[in-house]
Amino acid sequence: MAEVSNKQVLLRDYVSGFPKESDMVLTSSTIKLNLPEGSKGVLVKNLYLSCDPYMRARMKKLDGISYIDSFKPGFPITGYGVSKVLDSGDPNFKEGDLVWGMTGWEQYSIINETHSLFKIHHTDVPLSYYTGILGMPGMTAYVGFYEICSPKKGEHVFISAASGAVGQLVGQFAKLSGFYVVGSAGSKEKSFLLSHSHSYHISRMNSQLFSVLVDLLKNKFGFDEAFNYKEEPDLSAALKRYFPEGIDIYFENVGGKMLDAVLQNMKAHARIAVCGMISQYNLDQPEGAHNLMNLVWKRARMEGFLVFEYYHQYPKFLEFVLPYIREGKIVYVEDIAEGLESAPAALVGLFAGRNVGKQVVVVSHE
Amino acid sequence: MAEVSNKQVLLRDYVSGFPKESDMVLTSSTIKLNLPEGSKGVLVKNLYLSCDPYMRARMKKLDGISYIDSFKPGFPITGYGVSKVLDSGDPNFKEGDLVWGMTGWEQYSIINETHSLFKIHHTDVPLSYYTGILGMPGMTAYVGFYEICSPKKGEHVFISAASGAVGQLVGQFAKLSGFYVVGSAGSKEKSFLLSHSHSYHISRMNSQLFSVLVDLLKNKFGFDEAFNYKEEPDLSAALKRYFPEGIDIYFENVGGKMLDAVLQNMKAHARIAVCGMISQYNLDQPEGAHNLMNLVWKRARMEGFLVFEYYHQYPKFLEFVLPYIREGKIVYVEDIAEGLESAPAALVGLFAGRNVGKQVVVVSHE
Repeated sequence: MAEVSNKQVLLRDYVSGFPKESDMVLTSSTIKLNLPEGSKGVLVKNLYLSCDPYMRARMKKLDGISYIDSFKPGFPITGYGVSKVLDSGDPNFKEGDLVWGMTGWEQYSIINETHSLFKIHHTDVPLSYYTGILGMPGMTAYVGFYEICSPKKGEHVFISAASGAVGQLVGQFAKLSGFYVVGSAGSKEKSFLLSHSHSYHISRMNSQLFSVLVDLLKNKFGFDEAFNYKEEPDLSAALKRYFPEGIDIYFENVGGKMLDAVLQNMKAHARIAVCGMISQYNLDQPEGAHNLMNLVWKRARMEGFLVFEYYHQYPKFLEFVLPYIREGKIVYVEDIAEGLESAPAALVGLFAGRNVGKQVVVVSHE
Repeated sequence: MAEVSNKQVLLRDYVSGFPKESDMVLTSSTIKLNLPEGSKGVLVKNLYLSCDPYMRARMKKLDGISYIDSFKPGFPITGYGVSKVLDSGDPNFKEGDLVWGMTGWEQYSIINETHSLFKIHHTDVPLSYYTGILGMPGMTAYVGFYEICSPKKGEHVFISAASGAVGQLVGQFAKLSGFYVVGSAGSKEKSFLLSHSHSYHISRMNSQLFSVLVDLLKNKFGFDEAFNYKEEPDLSAALKRYFPEGIDIYFENVGGKMLDAVLQNMKAHARIAVCGMISQYNLDQPEGAHNLMNLVWKRARMEGFLVFEYYHQYPKFLEFVLPYIREGKIVYVEDIAEGLESAPAALVGLFAGRNVGKQVVVVSHE
């Protein structure tokens, strides 16, 4: 079979500080559109690629402190994506199957770790959702909230990075379960929310500036309250305003000053589910959390988790979430970048807080 | 009835930074040795007073962030102690009863909050133990280890402030339950361990310097390993030496740099029971914990607790611990200061790390 060209995004070298577009290189190689003899992997065409905060850790040299490996300089970035199987050496997959899981930042990939791929059975929802609400971020929100936060009737929930891939879902799950929910978000750019079919995405139009963040959280996601943390000189005071009796549950996505403010505003027996700390990933020395003694005073629990330990619950999660999507009871906002060429900027934008909603890169619509 | 003189230790004023002896005032008032007409409290003679790290918080002006009130400037310090009832307006107590609970730093106190007093039924063990192993610190070690740490067979346990009132017990409980136990401690002064009857206490003799700390932890308490943190330039390296495969359980008494080092050396699904953070109590701005992302990478849990929420388990605890004491399977080291006059120095010494073992002040032996 003929070779075709295969555009790729490579990591140039290990990154320190804030990642820049120039830390990645757009290049092109060629690939044969069938698997090598004897391969037990799958050859896929990549459709949607996922930009996720955890990827920052993989851009630096990791020495076993983490659960994942570093990206290899000179090789394509890898990450979650939605792909179509073109050729398969694994009896569990066949040509034409749609899958989500770990793939490469390129047009075509050979995936050898097929055990980590999920077959996509439901295509009446946008395929890109399998990088978000129906993929890793969706599962993260689900297990993070229902398992790690141990929510109890009537509790008050706070979510940082609440317009992000995970935060918007935690908030909506919590609202659907009857909780009082407040979210914080902050975007440097003013953005514009577009609706097409039953999904939403974000467009930036300099001519029509409109701050959608708080509106998005309250009116689209149904949060009880929301605030832009960039407009709050005193985060602790902001939290006191929305939680005069304290926070029962904090879904932690950002770390740093927000964590310290939450620690000061916990109710007795509060729980903090630590999903991530995006504000810290680009710092050489992370900011310290100074208010940890509040864990004692408030008999509070802080717990980290990794979604992959819960993937056996994925079928149960789909049963839970698909009806909500189909009935329009959950919306999912995506920040869509068109073309593999836009992937470096999209990933970098995540750490500048430029995205509103799940950051997706479209490599190909089919 | 005649008035007698009543020596007292008052808080001079709210304290910032390291407490000094001069933050307290030794004074004398008079007291009648019977209760005022109609009192529902008890009049007690104080025998042993307890110096505990949490008392530092009460020396500053608290504005509802904590579970306790500030000490009142100009009034006696209050704290746990062992006392003998001289007169009672509460039918649950009678003259001659021995009790432990909250009392005043003075020779005689009127205690109105009698519901928080525990009656002492077992006097075949040193009475001072009711400020330590048989009192609040004992219960703290018990619930902290068995409830908050959720220990599982074969796990590796690390304890900071391991020669302190609580730490020495957590380590011994963990050893009796079959765990691998390492403790850290550090004392500025060299000390000398004395044994009298079946208890131990510490004496400081400048002429015969002998570092007992590591020896104490390993040979008296039976820890597998122990180190003096003041002799370790790199705490993380020290922990890696004793926990090449990581720490499952950390009983946190100190905070600061030790916490950060532990966060770097956790095994997957580690638990940190936060009992206290004595290294931070005298700092205007607590040191930050910089390595909290390890909670995510290691799916770890960090949980604070307050012993008073578990006091209903006290009878069960006594059944558990008394046989161990009587059979000599648990030893308890006390650092005994003689006389109410020595109380300010004893309390201050706690924050300088001067004590080895439970810091007790003897007001009167009977």
